Amino acid sequence: MSDIRPDFQIQDPGFERRVRDSFARQRVMGFLGAELGEVGPGHALITLPYRPELSQQHGFFHGGIVGTIADSAAGYAGYTLMPHDASVLTVEYKLNLMAPADGDRLIARGRVIRPGKILVITQADVFVEKDGAERQCAVLLQTLMCMHQRPDTTTRAA
Amino acid sequence: MSDIRPDFQIQDPGFERRVRDSFARQRVMGFLGAELGEVGPGHALITLPYRPELSQQHGFFHGGIVGTIADSAAGYAGYTLMPHDASVLTVEYKLNLMAPADGDRLIARGRVIRPGKILVITQADVFVEKDGAERQCAVLLQTLMCMHQRPDTTTRAA
Amino acid sequence: MSDIRPDFQIQDPGFERRVRDSFARQRVMGFLGAELGEVGPGHALITLPYRPELSQQHGFFHGGIVGTIADSAAGYAGYTLMPHDASVLTVEYKLNLMAPADGDRLIARGRVIRPGKILVITQADVFVEKDGAERQCAVLLQTLMCMHQRPDTTTRAA
Amino acid sequence: MSDIRPDFQIQDPGFERRVRDSFARQRVMGFLGAELGEVGPGHALITLPYRPELSQQHGFFHGGIVGTIADSAAGYAGYTLMPHDASVLTVEYKLNLMAPADGDRLIARGRVIRPGKILVITQADVFVEKDGAERQCAVLLQTLMCMHQRPDTTTRAA
Repeated sequence: MSDIRPDFQIQDPGFERRVRDSFARQRVMGFLGAELGEVGPGHALITLPYRPELSQQHGFFHGGIVGTIADSAAGYAGYTLMPHDASVLTVEYKLNLMAPADGDRLIARGRVIRPGKILVITQADVFVEKDGAERQCAVLLQTLMCMHQRPDTTTRAA
Repeated sequence: MSDIRPDFQIQDPGFERRVRDSFARQRVMGFLGAELGEVGPGHALITLPYRPELSQQHGFFHGGIVGTIADSAAGYAGYTLMPHDASVLTVEYKLNLMAPADGDRLIARGRVIRPGKILVITQADVFVEKDGAERQCAVLLQTLMCMHQRPDTTTRAA
Repeated sequence: MSDIRPDFQIQDPGFERRVRDSFARQRVMGFLGAELGEVGPGHALITLPYRPELSQQHGFFHGGIVGTIADSAAGYAGYTLMPHDASVLTVEYKLNLMAPADGDRLIARGRVIRPGKILVITQADVFVEKDGAERQCAVLLQTLMCMHQRPDTTTRAA
Repeated sequence: MSDIRPDFQIQDPGFERRVRDSFARQRVMGFLGAELGEVGPGHALITLPYRPELSQQHGFFHGGIVGTIADSAAGYAGYTLMPHDASVLTVEYKLNLMAPADGDRLIARGRVIRPGKILVITQADVFVEKDGAERQCAVLLQTLMCMHQRPDTTTRAA
């Protein structure tokens, strides 16, 4: 992933803990079996092992599941650069499914393209691993909104 | 859903059975708890009751899950108009998350905007139901590809 | 255009004048030959007669030109609902080109899907008129940003 | 543009002539003042000097004009890899406008992300040059269709 830019400025030195805590609160990630990998300034990686329960009608990963981990990988890439007391919302994303997600594991690499105070533009490249080889199966282009002074804690009553 | 066009021509009178069979093979739908509702020429409806396992960090439905059922609802809307021996692939979609998906049930209404021989353009409007009231929380704009002479059966080895 | 919602609340009774003044300042509109038609709460219409100078390699309207008037039609639809001292920015849009833009005139109908204080989601349907008949050739889904207390006046030095 | 992949296989050794001829037939490019720069396997570059006639209401390049050259740059990037007797159609694109296109010249760098027989996925990064410095102002993600055995010649009657 040669595109990771080394020049992003973080506002919160505790960004990694904040991202990992938020990921742990995204209960859908655990439900799907997704794991958060490397997290750095402006980038984040999520992996998801194959399970038949995640498949579409041909037995491959469903495109929406590809989109789900890409959305979170790109979203957390953006969240790394936000202040400690902010939360992150996905405004929108576009997902191109470029090849069948046929493999043993998905790897979604999210990265910031353009940081902004309110809006952050991110991208995720999603690869499917099969027999040890990676092949790109999707790309996502996303707009995030930084909600200042709205800490990222659960707001829905249980 | 006033946009359903009455003028779509079906090519396969058995389209509803074909769509329901395909939906049943999308194992992720059962895993999430999604159900296929009304299916007609150029439209399809999918519902998904809330479960904490489907939530993002604030306790609402995760945007990727919203996208997953919207992708399938729009995809099956397009699939209703395809020939009996075709399968359907999602080329890409864009999803705008317009309001928090905070509620008891998601309802994704997919419909065809433009049928074509190879490419079909579709839209899905997603609503979240809370205390009996529906509120639109997302809109999806999608491009599908019709794979002719490729029946929609499982191709991944078990 | 059955989708125009009658229930949008305007914040500025002088919205139509504000929209028409802004359109007049979009010099590219005059350069292309575009005209602003009906403007109402949450919707706006732009037309563009065919000229060979607007064509792509097959002689039809270039897809980017279709996108340009769709962007403005949807943008001004959103701008009708904004306060008098705000300006509007396009955050992003997605354009599906569904049929060749082969005809004598383009008609872009923009409308608000979801108004918000900061972000406004809009759509534009673009039709091409040929021999008196209209055919939809494109659809655009757009995110706008309302820049509060930033009146819409020229900021670039001449 | 470190992302240009060196490994794309061309099918037509005369691709550059074919791309330049097609660009010359896109009359809108000459009308706007756009020029085709470097063209190679899987990539193409278009530049556009500023003129007040290309501006939106704040005096910057109109977002639709940014989209127009990005659409063509990405489209021709894809077209370099297509057979000699094919034409190219834009199926759809998404454009994120990340910063005001405030400057003296636009530079759109298109490149192929994923070549396919029928569908080709491309991206364009658009930069605005001001006082000699480049700043990225937009990114476009696009789906192209390769129309086989449909040479790229004008089909609209004059």
